[in-house]
Amino acid sequence: MRGAVLYGPRDVRFEERDEPKIIKPTDAVIRISSACVCGSDLWPYRGIQPIVQPTPMGHEYCGTVEAVGREVRNIKPGQFVVGSFATSDNSCIICQHGYQSSCVQREFMSGAQSPFLRVPLADGTLVPTPDVPSEDLIPSLLTLSDVMGTGWFAADAANVKPGSTVAVVGDGAVGLLGVLSAKQMGAKRIIAMSRHASRQKLAREFGATDIVEERGEAGVERIKEMTKRIGADSVLECVGTQESMTQAINSTRPGGYIGYVGVPHGVSLDGEQLFFSHVHLHGGPAPVRRYLPELIKLVLNGKINPGKVFDLSLPLDQVAEGYRAMDERRAIKTLLRPNGTK
Amino acid sequence: MRGAVLYGPRDVRFEERDEPKIIKPTDAVIRISSACVCGSDLWPYRGIQPIVQPTPMGHEYCGTVEAVGREVRNIKPGQFVVGSFATSDNSCIICQHGYQSSCVQREFMSGAQSPFLRVPLADGTLVPTPDVPSEDLIPSLLTLSDVMGTGWFAADAANVKPGSTVAVVGDGAVGLLGVLSAKQMGAKRIIAMSRHASRQKLAREFGATDIVEERGEAGVERIKEMTKRIGADSVLECVGTQESMTQAINSTRPGGYIGYVGVPHGVSLDGEQLFFSHVHLHGGPAPVRRYLPELIKLVLNGKINPGKVFDLSLPLDQVAEGYRAMDERRAIKTLLRPNGTK
Repeated sequence: MRGAVLYGPRDVRFEERDEPKIIKPTDAVIRISSACVCGSDLWPYRGIQPIVQPTPMGHEYCGTVEAVGREVRNIKPGQFVVGSFATSDNSCIICQHGYQSSCVQREFMSGAQSPFLRVPLADGTLVPTPDVPSEDLIPSLLTLSDVMGTGWFAADAANVKPGSTVAVVGDGAVGLLGVLSAKQMGAKRIIAMSRHASRQKLAREFGATDIVEERGEAGVERIKEMTKRIGADSVLECVGTQESMTQAINSTRPGGYIGYVGVPHGVSLDGEQLFFSHVHLHGGPAPVRRYLPELIKLVLNGKINPGKVFDLSLPLDQVAEGYRAMDERRAIKTLLRPNGTK
Repeated sequence: MRGAVLYGPRDVRFEERDEPKIIKPTDAVIRISSACVCGSDLWPYRGIQPIVQPTPMGHEYCGTVEAVGREVRNIKPGQFVVGSFATSDNSCIICQHGYQSSCVQREFMSGAQSPFLRVPLADGTLVPTPDVPSEDLIPSLLTLSDVMGTGWFAADAANVKPGSTVAVVGDGAVGLLGVLSAKQMGAKRIIAMSRHASRQKLAREFGATDIVEERGEAGVERIKEMTKRIGADSVLECVGTQESMTQAINSTRPGGYIGYVGVPHGVSLDGEQLFFSHVHLHGGPAPVRRYLPELIKLVLNGKINPGKVFDLSLPLDQVAEGYRAMDERRAIKTLLRPNGTK
């Protein structure tokens, strides 16, 4: 089969790879329905996170089960499944507490930008849908694997409740789906921070009530103006830079909550500033597996349509263009079709 | 009157000061029943926090109201009151959210190591007891002003619940009262980190089920051994150094909670490490005013006896010895009696 492999900065190749097989008895192999490019793929793509060897890319996936190992109990060939970007046994104490993305057996997935994918710990990582879903639902189901689950975690970690005032830092796909999540959780006011017309439009469609174009201190000042000068109840930090984290902390009211899901790169927090900010801080790799059953229901019932974040759809063999378009911010998020159809 | 004034590192003088008067119509003046030395007083005492001019010391206080300004409604002369180390109007939006120690009108108190004290925003800062309490309850009531309120906030911020496993970093008075707070909140297992026999003894008396003498990585390793290798549900950070904060983060299970109340000095948190630790982080200056009504009840009903942290009682004019004893860790906490009696 042919799949995407990253060789170095801005060097994504679509090349022959071994077809995955069952290696451990707890594995499954799935046929990918759709794959996509994640904002976090751009860190190594841009050379900010070093690549030491050619690396099969892609960790967001859904598809049909082809084969399972002999110890797999709950997942069966022919089922349509959505899985987390982080594997989990879903039974250790950490999983029981709902932090499957820190499972004692966790592995981070890769190689999903391919026609087939081996998924370790299939029983604890994959969630089947009741039936094989219709084609139009695939993009939304795919987002649950990471980007939507991560936006949801950001809102949950930021304690969004009915009536909350929420600010979202970052207008990438995660930030936009953070807006959608906050809306779904009943937020009254949702301030999206974005200076891109197409992203502002989608943010509004997802439930943003206000747009702030300013960044940094000016952005904080605007949030303060809009919140009786105290800051937002909940702030979703969906970028992972020093500037975005500082902006998030300074935009939160004393006693408010920050959910941070942008993988921090070069971020350092000053203990004393954090102390006197009086904020709650929680984040990390999203425990997608915890949320999958609920989010699958919301998609199947038509309550949410997170697949709208895909504004570029390409056949899988054009994966390199998919990265380029996101790197240059021409696309919010790229959907990749292994079968080459639109 | 004569009170304690800090001139520079290890230079506390007991000297003549102006007797406080009502300055603003929202002030009260109280006659101090007992005062004490706070662990945070040791930062400037040790020169770690610079002193630019002679500074009247002391921010923990309780006593009898002598006079009130013309706009004070709820506090009356003759009442016995306990107040927070941070003033608050107890009515702004931040106060309404329970973060009175970040009130828009907040001032940090000082000058309580004196016979009389002016308290701004008396209505929002002071809480009267139903009657004038008996002498033996004064030390416990005094602790509510800061050290006990701070230990309580640490446990609350660390989400201590019935059945929780809790670790407490720091065996100063705040850490010890964090143990007492965790016990009161129903923690099942409370691990106190201490290598001082007298403090270990008090920790056990307050409810610690285990003592860990190791620090740093060895301390973390012991906590892991005691918690099925995942870490504690709740960790109270009651010191404020890089080492103690790192120890707290590494001792908490993924998804667990850290309440940090030691004022951070030179602490820097690595964003990526914090992200992958998956902990909840909350802390800051304790919103003592929020807890005062409940804690006063617990003291008056004999449910808690936090005054036991005072293991040295001195007449106020020996305040310098009170600082020395704490600095040299000969005393956990010094009680100061303005009238000179034991």
